[in-house]
Amino acid sequence: MEETLFCPAGFRAGGARAGLKASGRDDLAVIVSDRPCLAAAHFTRNRFPGAPITVSRDTLERSARSARGILINSGQANACTGPAGERLARAIRRALAKPLGARPEEIFVASTGVIGHMPSLARIEAALPATLAAAGATPEGWRAAARGIMTTDTREKIASREIRLAGGRAARVLGIAKGSGMIHPNLATMLAFVATDAHLSPAGLRAAFRRAVDRSFHCVTVDGDTSTSDMALLLANGAAGGPALRPGGAEFEAFERALTEVCAALARAIALDGEGATRLVTVRVRGAASEPDARECAMAIARSNLVKCALFGRDPNWGRLACAVGTCGAEYQSGRVVIQIGPICVFQKGRPARFDETAVHDYMASNEEIEIHVDLKAGKSEAVVWTCDLTYDYVKINAEYRT
Amino acid sequence: MEETLFCPAGFRAGGARAGLKASGRDDLAVIVSDRPCLAAAHFTRNRFPGAPITVSRDTLERSARSARGILINSGQANACTGPAGERLARAIRRALAKPLGARPEEIFVASTGVIGHMPSLARIEAALPATLAAAGATPEGWRAAARGIMTTDTREKIASREIRLAGGRAARVLGIAKGSGMIHPNLATMLAFVATDAHLSPAGLRAAFRRAVDRSFHCVTVDGDTSTSDMALLLANGAAGGPALRPGGAEFEAFERALTEVCAALARAIALDGEGATRLVTVRVRGAASEPDARECAMAIARSNLVKCALFGRDPNWGRLACAVGTCGAEYQSGRVVIQIGPICVFQKGRPARFDETAVHDYMASNEEIEIHVDLKAGKSEAVVWTCDLTYDYVKINAEYRT
Repeated sequence: MEETLFCPAGFRAGGARAGLKASGRDDLAVIVSDRPCLAAAHFTRNRFPGAPITVSRDTLERSARSARGILINSGQANACTGPAGERLARAIRRALAKPLGARPEEIFVASTGVIGHMPSLARIEAALPATLAAAGATPEGWRAAARGIMTTDTREKIASREIRLAGGRAARVLGIAKGSGMIHPNLATMLAFVATDAHLSPAGLRAAFRRAVDRSFHCVTVDGDTSTSDMALLLANGAAGGPALRPGGAEFEAFERALTEVCAALARAIALDGEGATRLVTVRVRGAASEPDARECAMAIARSNLVKCALFGRDPNWGRLACAVGTCGAEYQSGRVVIQIGPICVFQKGRPARFDETAVHDYMASNEEIEIHVDLKAGKSEAVVWTCDLTYDYVKINAEYRT
Repeated sequence: MEETLFCPAGFRAGGARAGLKASGRDDLAVIVSDRPCLAAAHFTRNRFPGAPITVSRDTLERSARSARGILINSGQANACTGPAGERLARAIRRALAKPLGARPEEIFVASTGVIGHMPSLARIEAALPATLAAAGATPEGWRAAARGIMTTDTREKIASREIRLAGGRAARVLGIAKGSGMIHPNLATMLAFVATDAHLSPAGLRAAFRRAVDRSFHCVTVDGDTSTSDMALLLANGAAGGPALRPGGAEFEAFERALTEVCAALARAIALDGEGATRLVTVRVRGAASEPDARECAMAIARSNLVKCALFGRDPNWGRLACAVGTCGAEYQSGRVVIQIGPICVFQKGRPARFDETAVHDYMASNEEIEIHVDLKAGKSEAVVWTCDLTYDYVKINAEYRT
């Protein structure tokens, strides 16, 4: 998705094929830091969290200032696997700790794939030495890691930014993500791993990441389902040097902007790669009385199966858009709402606008990203949500996933 | 869906082809009473209600004790049509009032079909005299009305019950409904018209209908969208005679049970006829700490696209069921939840049960109705929700609806 990759100093990343997937595709990824990191994380709120979530929560509690890395497998989610699953997740944590000379509780773990199945520890252990040996602070290493965490994803998801700091220094933010089904906010409806060499305070890191997640991963919905396994993790090792970026300062703001952009780029990539999707759909609501109102309205559109089928059909079906707006609880007067598809107004004053249907159809047919704009004319708040269209292939992928 | 129809005395029903639909299918229905009726109604909560909703609200406010009938068209929803749409809805109301010798405000109107389009008043007026002349207190008349309100429905939906009263008398409840897309509770995500000749007090009628709607139309979801146009209406003309059924009494309870059964049969028929559906899915949650908890849990399963695709694939995917339960806010301990597909336990103690996948697949493949049971083991409340599977044809119907 991006050409130039800015790799944060002091991190090595890599991926490999451990033989966990029947398809034979890559299924292992590591990200390690050469020094202890600060960590911030958001975990799924699903009430049946996978074993790696439980174990990684433990790591966060114990090592938020001394994390060393993460080991991720794809193929099996190790969720709903009971005590045996948790023992396995701890064993996987030890497997990466040992060659790093780290303590197990300094290592994060994540698994994605079929729920109820456990990955083979023996295969992970067998593949790990070569994976670590090949890992590098290079675009190739990060791309291999991005490939190693894919399941039904059709493309690797990776994004990065560089910010300039005082004294000629620079810091970098790089993230990888996976996810194409079971994508819905709160949380962590995908796997996302972000590394930065910026020097931050623990509180500054947590605050910046929380805001970035709220404006990225929490703004994407594919099918309204929240997975049992997913997480967003940020590691910061300070290798860029210099004093800790001070919250409120210009450099901190530049960092937070870069972090948010990386997370948003990953979130958009996830929506575009939604299972079976042919279009990235960006829903922008403005003029709301509050930010929650704006979000609720945008999400009502982004979650509507009827809207999403119409988008697949490139059908300028303003009726379904108005209907979706009509079901949300946001504050507005129905006669004032304005709805646009791309640059073209399709609905205003409580009824369809006069517009050229062919022009809207052509806009939808010829752009990979379709923008829907809603102005509630009830205030000054706004929100953006990303989703995708609902297609035959979504049904195919999810009706036949296990068979 | 049912063979014997019990037609309430004093009501005539009929349907016709007014030429509103390009397909040439029936598109008009009338239900009229030979005497003033009590009326109770639930209207869509969508914030862009169609003009007929606005006009029927006016009828309910003015004539809840003196309603005379309803005129419904299919083909055009007359929603998002501005002042012209409202004038049209009022003209349609007058069109039925005149031949009945009724006042316009004693007539309900409803429209269903494409949003933003208005039906032809001239065609409705032209077709009405013959439609009324052919209307009857007969199964044929009611079936014709049921056909006249269909849009993407593939089958007519009609159900009835008879109850025995003191003194050898009887009363009847008969309902017709339409709806297969844009189906989700709150409300009235479909059109449903129920007539009874039972003698009730206004307050008793409203209370019984509210409870019946809560246990039927509010328990069905196809795609999570709430339409701009839909309503559930109950007319009671007392033609069965005798004293008004007293709330709390055995006869009132028999009436309410019959009313609930009629509404539930219609709701199930709507789910089974969900756009593209191949299976009726009944989600039963028991052992909940409260009824809202039970409903939320059942709805979390019934709304999950991933679950619904798995059902289409006849895939005993307990992981998606557990995941959906895991996203709901109901009170429970995740280690105690038990999930069954039909008679077979697939999940307990926080992990998959040992079960025969082929047996579950066969159950799903060989039954038109798939039952999913969840026991939260947190209390004594329960709820049932009906939905359907998510199929290629759902996408096809909704991607190509207007083109």
